[in-house]
Amino acid sequence: MQEQYILRIDCPDEKGLVHKITGVLYHNDLNVIRTDEFVDKEKSHFFMRTEFAGSTDEKKIISGLIGILPTDATICLNKVRKKNIVILATKEHHCLGDLLIRHHFNELNANILAIISNHQILQSLTEKFEIPFHFISHENKTREAHEIEILDTIELYQPEFLVLAKYMRVLTATFSAQFSNNIINIHHSFLPAFIGANPYRQAYERGVKIIGATAHFVNENLDEGPIIAQSIIPVDHTENANDMARLGKDVEKIVLAKALKLVFEDRIFIRENKTVIFE
Amino acid sequence: MQEQYILRIDCPDEKGLVHKITGVLYHNDLNVIRTDEFVDKEKSHFFMRTEFAGSTDEKKIISGLIGILPTDATICLNKVRKKNIVILATKEHHCLGDLLIRHHFNELNANILAIISNHQILQSLTEKFEIPFHFISHENKTREAHEIEILDTIELYQPEFLVLAKYMRVLTATFSAQFSNNIINIHHSFLPAFIGANPYRQAYERGVKIIGATAHFVNENLDEGPIIAQSIIPVDHTENANDMARLGKDVEKIVLAKALKLVFEDRIFIRENKTVIFE
Amino acid sequence: MQEQYILRIDCPDEKGLVHKITGVLYHNDLNVIRTDEFVDKEKSHFFMRTEFAGSTDEKKIISGLIGILPTDATICLNKVRKKNIVILATKEHHCLGDLLIRHHFNELNANILAIISNHQILQSLTEKFEIPFHFISHENKTREAHEIEILDTIELYQPEFLVLAKYMRVLTATFSAQFSNNIINIHHSFLPAFIGANPYRQAYERGVKIIGATAHFVNENLDEGPIIAQSIIPVDHTENANDMARLGKDVEKIVLAKALKLVFEDRIFIRENKTVIFE
Amino acid sequence: MQEQYILRIDCPDEKGLVHKITGVLYHNDLNVIRTDEFVDKEKSHFFMRTEFAGSTDEKKIISGLIGILPTDATICLNKVRKKNIVILATKEHHCLGDLLIRHHFNELNANILAIISNHQILQSLTEKFEIPFHFISHENKTREAHEIEILDTIELYQPEFLVLAKYMRVLTATFSAQFSNNIINIHHSFLPAFIGANPYRQAYERGVKIIGATAHFVNENLDEGPIIAQSIIPVDHTENANDMARLGKDVEKIVLAKALKLVFEDRIFIRENKTVIFE
Repeated sequence: MQEQYILRIDCPDEKGLVHKITGVLYHNDLNVIRTDEFVDKEKSHFFMRTEFAGSTDEKKIISGLIGILPTDATICLNKVRKKNIVILATKEHHCLGDLLIRHHFNELNANILAIISNHQILQSLTEKFEIPFHFISHENKTREAHEIEILDTIELYQPEFLVLAKYMRVLTATFSAQFSNNIINIHHSFLPAFIGANPYRQAYERGVKIIGATAHFVNENLDEGPIIAQSIIPVDHTENANDMARLGKDVEKIVLAKALKLVFEDRIFIRENKTVIFE
Repeated sequence: MQEQYILRIDCPDEKGLVHKITGVLYHNDLNVIRTDEFVDKEKSHFFMRTEFAGSTDEKKIISGLIGILPTDATICLNKVRKKNIVILATKEHHCLGDLLIRHHFNELNANILAIISNHQILQSLTEKFEIPFHFISHENKTREAHEIEILDTIELYQPEFLVLAKYMRVLTATFSAQFSNNIINIHHSFLPAFIGANPYRQAYERGVKIIGATAHFVNENLDEGPIIAQSIIPVDHTENANDMARLGKDVEKIVLAKALKLVFEDRIFIRENKTVIFE
Repeated sequence: MQEQYILRIDCPDEKGLVHKITGVLYHNDLNVIRTDEFVDKEKSHFFMRTEFAGSTDEKKIISGLIGILPTDATICLNKVRKKNIVILATKEHHCLGDLLIRHHFNELNANILAIISNHQILQSLTEKFEIPFHFISHENKTREAHEIEILDTIELYQPEFLVLAKYMRVLTATFSAQFSNNIINIHHSFLPAFIGANPYRQAYERGVKIIGATAHFVNENLDEGPIIAQSIIPVDHTENANDMARLGKDVEKIVLAKALKLVFEDRIFIRENKTVIFE
Repeated sequence: MQEQYILRIDCPDEKGLVHKITGVLYHNDLNVIRTDEFVDKEKSHFFMRTEFAGSTDEKKIISGLIGILPTDATICLNKVRKKNIVILATKEHHCLGDLLIRHHFNELNANILAIISNHQILQSLTEKFEIPFHFISHENKTREAHEIEILDTIELYQPEFLVLAKYMRVLTATFSAQFSNNIINIHHSFLPAFIGANPYRQAYERGVKIIGATAHFVNENLDEGPIIAQSIIPVDHTENANDMARLGKDVEKIVLAKALKLVFEDRIFIRENKTVIFE
């Protein structure tokens, strides 16, 4: 049985990169399963993702690549395996429920190590699926004190990614910075429209005819991290803000699940606050 | 041959409105073709649109309705006929071309009386379809002086609606106020995202995964009038701002045409900067 | 606290129907919450759905309506309440899981009385949510014998609707006839394309660029009952039949849930194998 | 100024193909603008499309590629230039009008050499754009005799592609075979649903909730050639067959234009009645 790998390379563009990179793989006798590449012409920057299989020495491949790539190239070589994640949620169950079902049937490409919530509402759902649930109330605490408690709990699990599955507390820049671009959030609007609180109320007040949801990486600027996936549904005058919120849930959960699949399969490059995604 | 009419009523909601209104139509022996109604529960406001046919005295219907409606009701009774319009454009041909073809084959529900543009690029296209074309350059003129020239030309035609088919000059509040809610614009973004100049460049910079177009009425606040129709297309990292602009054109022309159909068929109520539309 | 009702009327079209029907409601002092009507011009058939509230004598309303409607009108007056349902499933969890989560959080507008399956795979999931699970194997049984066992189990629960949540056995016409138009199925294709077995394989072989799912009522003709809701997702050459099946799951579960909402809220008329739906 | 080229290669998959192919380009000192590749795992078949620029000897590249590719590889090397096309139409103007506007403004990537129609309705529109129009009536002729007249006219122009822009006559297998996979048709349904005549009437009768359009290559089996692009719009009970036909027009013209762009930019491989498309 051969190991499977995903290789992601990005670097300033130059002639012959594909030829040279595939040469390293070819001469290591690896089975390339799929290759995608993209050159951002405006920035003259090269991106390439390759899935391959083989019995190989990872160090040898990396050193072969270093030998032929520009010195400022980023090389990321991962064995294919499930990612370890912790999920933060608040009161709404639709995203968490969807993830728990997928996880239970082994479709999430991740191990959910724990759920942390500032409310207890989702505890019984979580425990049906035998996942640890940590209730960490924010009441009577400063934002910083609350986050320190959360961080202490996260530390127990050493996750690679945090997933905000409708976690409705604003994170401090300090918190976000610790996991920069390893936090994935689902925002209940078609970003960058309706940044901030109550986007469905904002959408209703503005009288838009389409609402949406946006899954994105979280960085220090709230709601302004790199966008991973977006989707929309049409609405009309018959829907008030509550109706939009209800309709939006189905979009939110599907967009979040789609984004997580892309993240966990190492399909995404982040560069200058934007994503390059090989679906 | 009977005349066809469209009746639009909106007023504070109260019990029995549908019964009373349909009673007036029934007792005038009119043939109701279609009725739509909607009650905005938050504002407790009633909207009703009825298409009917009959040989009738319009005044008699109106006075019958006044008799049974709240005193602050708005009653709008129109014979079904084509609207008279003037189109403003700049350099891009996709929306204008689409409207000219529809108009030529009698599918626009409007008479295009003239095209006004601040460039000459679209003149030969327009004249193929035997529509008057007025070139009114904005160069070396204040915005106000330019608009006065445009207004003088518009006045020759006495249109009921102005259509901004990718007219790329910002209108003053003075100009807009004269035609308030009788100007329809196509904005090349998914409003309220990317208000202002170069929305495709903004969309590209933000790295969105969906772009869109918005047809809306123009009032004194640029890009902030009541939204009529929106549509979207997916994009990804391979599209730069120019690609998005090119892809967006097909969305823009279809959304504008759809919005105009709704306007010209008297399907829209405007209230508190939002639209109620019975498609 | 007033009771809420939903009234559905359909009958041959004639002048004054809306006026007369709303008159009955008005004179019974009922609070109309929402009214929708539609006239099928080709068939000259009238459809009307009204939500209202009030303390009333149902018989008095029905008899008032009978007095003013054509003799062949269909009148259906339901108190607003949850429907009782039984779900049939096989091995796939995505639709059942989605419905169980919605049900658990009181969002389904129905009581799930039991799950019946010809496999045991979904038993542990179901039991997490404390719903009875009946495993009724089809092995070594004729189709008829298997269905009789299922019918015996269904009879214990007296459900108003059967939901086929990816139940992969073909139902006999005899079975379907017993619940005609009270069975809702989710078909994993964009009907009427790819009727029958393995629609994703068929879609892959045909090289379509869009796949879909269809929720429909089941009658005697398999896959040919009245369509309730459809939705689609784009695919391309990179997706094989398995990929399409995986992608299709998210569409299937959302379309089924949407259709069930419409059914359980009494929003649907069925006539001549088609649906009229007031969303 | 360098020439631009598009190279398309497909062949049985084997190790190292990308490395070897890119090697040929690299050693000829060509500027690769973009490369896409895809391996069909089920058929073990490799597809690669490369855009490059350079001053080069085409024969040398081809012979270099032959040297490293399997013997049964298909190699297609095109200079980037506009394709020559003839359009066939009948009475409907929406697709033809859209193509004429795009052509007039140099956005079609093709030279429209002539329009051929079995009706005269579109003659004046065509002639506005100074394109030759050939009226070839089908009346009182056998299908074969009519096609021979059309073929004689087509021969005058020696087009590379025929575009059926709502040409409503069924082509014989003999005719189609002469241009096999060089004819592009727009079919007014979501194929394979509603093959044959009156698809909107069929869709209406079936009560579908979504309608669509399909652009495809034409081969000997009517409506069964390789699909290029599809798109859809939602409909409901309020739309009759005529309404669907009207709504469908906007989808048809956009899908046809999109498909033509893909064809004219050499983005498509056809294999076993399916398309591999690098958008």
